[in-house]
Amino acid sequence: MEIIEHETKKEMVKQLGIIDCDVHQSVNSYEDLKPYLPRSWWNRLGGEGYGVGSGGVFPGPNYPSPVGILREDSYPENGAPGSDIEFTKKQLLDEYGIEYAILTGAALHLSVLANADFASSMASAYNQWTAEKWLNADSRFKGSIIIAPQDPKEAAKEIDRWSSHPNFIQVQMGGAAKMPYGDRYFDPIFEACERNSLPLAIHPGAEGDGVSHPLTPLGHVQHYIERHCVLPQTIMTHLITMVFQGVFNKFPGLKVVVLEYGIAWMPHMMWRMDKNYKGLRMEVPWLEKRPSDYIREHVRLATQPIEEPDKIGQLDQIIEMMGTDKMVMFSSDYPHWDFDSPKASLNLIKDKNLKNRILRDNAKEFYGL
Amino acid sequence: MEIIEHETKKEMVKQLGIIDCDVHQSVNSYEDLKPYLPRSWWNRLGGEGYGVGSGGVFPGPNYPSPVGILREDSYPENGAPGSDIEFTKKQLLDEYGIEYAILTGAALHLSVLANADFASSMASAYNQWTAEKWLNADSRFKGSIIIAPQDPKEAAKEIDRWSSHPNFIQVQMGGAAKMPYGDRYFDPIFEACERNSLPLAIHPGAEGDGVSHPLTPLGHVQHYIERHCVLPQTIMTHLITMVFQGVFNKFPGLKVVVLEYGIAWMPHMMWRMDKNYKGLRMEVPWLEKRPSDYIREHVRLATQPIEEPDKIGQLDQIIEMMGTDKMVMFSSDYPHWDFDSPKASLNLIKDKNLKNRILRDNAKEFYGL
Repeated sequence: MEIIEHETKKEMVKQLGIIDCDVHQSVNSYEDLKPYLPRSWWNRLGGEGYGVGSGGVFPGPNYPSPVGILREDSYPENGAPGSDIEFTKKQLLDEYGIEYAILTGAALHLSVLANADFASSMASAYNQWTAEKWLNADSRFKGSIIIAPQDPKEAAKEIDRWSSHPNFIQVQMGGAAKMPYGDRYFDPIFEACERNSLPLAIHPGAEGDGVSHPLTPLGHVQHYIERHCVLPQTIMTHLITMVFQGVFNKFPGLKVVVLEYGIAWMPHMMWRMDKNYKGLRMEVPWLEKRPSDYIREHVRLATQPIEEPDKIGQLDQIIEMMGTDKMVMFSSDYPHWDFDSPKASLNLIKDKNLKNRILRDNAKEFYGL
Repeated sequence: MEIIEHETKKEMVKQLGIIDCDVHQSVNSYEDLKPYLPRSWWNRLGGEGYGVGSGGVFPGPNYPSPVGILREDSYPENGAPGSDIEFTKKQLLDEYGIEYAILTGAALHLSVLANADFASSMASAYNQWTAEKWLNADSRFKGSIIIAPQDPKEAAKEIDRWSSHPNFIQVQMGGAAKMPYGDRYFDPIFEACERNSLPLAIHPGAEGDGVSHPLTPLGHVQHYIERHCVLPQTIMTHLITMVFQGVFNKFPGLKVVVLEYGIAWMPHMMWRMDKNYKGLRMEVPWLEKRPSDYIREHVRLATQPIEEPDKIGQLDQIIEMMGTDKMVMFSSDYPHWDFDSPKASLNLIKDKNLKNRILRDNAKEFYGL
């Protein structure tokens, strides 16, 4: 495979001032959240009364990864990967010259908890912990306000609560949910994001686990590798329903950031939406332009796990098919097992200007950093 | 939009000897099947004892199309679209110079009937009717052996029953099913296809209806246009599970034809499977080559409803990304509302040789016609 020399030199990468849109800071133990969590929920954090093999805070995975979900070398001297601020700065920010790291947490199973009140309280505690521990520690860290989509009105309150904090720059919820995000059930969340001018990020992690639906339109699959391959179906469903059920007509200021679903499914989805709109627009009279125009205006995609074609230039073609060079933004997914390095993961993109847009400019403009 | 002159001339198209891989012949009324259906099922065909608005042979649609599902001009003087052999020959075969039309029937909801015995009997009756009425009428018609995947052993018997018929050239089942087709539950079907050297076609139509699962990993959507946009999730799930659960290792002679799911989702899926295979291959040790190699060897895609990018040449790029020019075969979906004309629907493909492969050569070689 051809290697583009330019991108293999760390110095060059550093000059760019990369923005990494998906960095998972983590608690070392859920005990860390106790100070921020009402005492009535403390028993949910495990401990006495729960036997071995049960009593995790979040539902366990139906599809455990055979390689775990963490990078082998991401363990700090003490504690869990992503839990040590100095180690994270050294291993990620300093190593790659990252100007801003957008923190996305490690509470990805919040959205598949059966108990909406516990989920809302956990989200709130997580945000408090992130604000105190991480957002005060280094100005390169920017935070995501975690919300529980199980209770849209509580989620809206949580968004309002943090919206004036200078270092929370977006809202974030899991992809696994009770129903597609196009449904009016979620309107209070979209309204709060728009009111506070905060983009809404959607991140996978709990699909097929907990009280989520089975993983596909055919029910469950068998292996983690299959689960990982069907994940984009979740975000395609959210975006298709958000456009056609009129979310962007009701909330024209809403912006959506798609994290960790890859990027190459996008042209197909836009084309299929546009073609069907030609024949079936009478069903969705509130739309004022083509579906793909809504996507281009309102949606951004983070790269990881970026697809790896056999030929250099094919990812350039995929992005060209999206009809804009502003949609795609770099993400590493540190410290997870399928981490995409800023140095190597964009080697398959040929156009240097496009690469710079992805590594830096698009996120800088989008988030106003 | 640039129009390629060459393809707008009917004469040129006729010279090609087009093969249309998806033509829906239809009964005029389910009464037509009575001679082939055990008397114990006759009451299922409707009539006395069923009130108005209930008692259809197949479950009705949860997502009715606002434009119906039939081409406005496809009604013959008497009877239902697709039911009149002479009219079909005139409006489709003669009009476009189609050398072979592969018949795919109008019993697409068979796979979501709760009663597996009734489904198997209906499949059997449908095949008998097709053989007698259509396959004897014109040598340009080639048939698909319809099966009910609810009972794989009965389905295998039905395949064996017709396999020596010279004009049944493949087996066909619905995309909506109890579980992903990678599951070993379906092995008897794959075994029978392989034993009889018959390709297996998968066709959508009943997703989200009857006893099928909800339409997406988030449950149901609201509109027909949304349903139409999420349909490729079904076939992606089938192919991902078939490759990773080892169907093509157990049945190396099995070939799969994907009908009516479009084509542009394929590169993304192949790339994601290959990338995950690099990191997670220990989960699927039976694989002997890259997932995309299995797809290229075993799978063919029919074009309709072909995606329509804004730029000519982008579909050429999509097909180039598949890594073979042999995978894609033309289909019109006659007489359904979103019929793709052999004249116009490939206008967005730039390469004339590729267009000829799609319109004729790929299907000719694949089916040995």
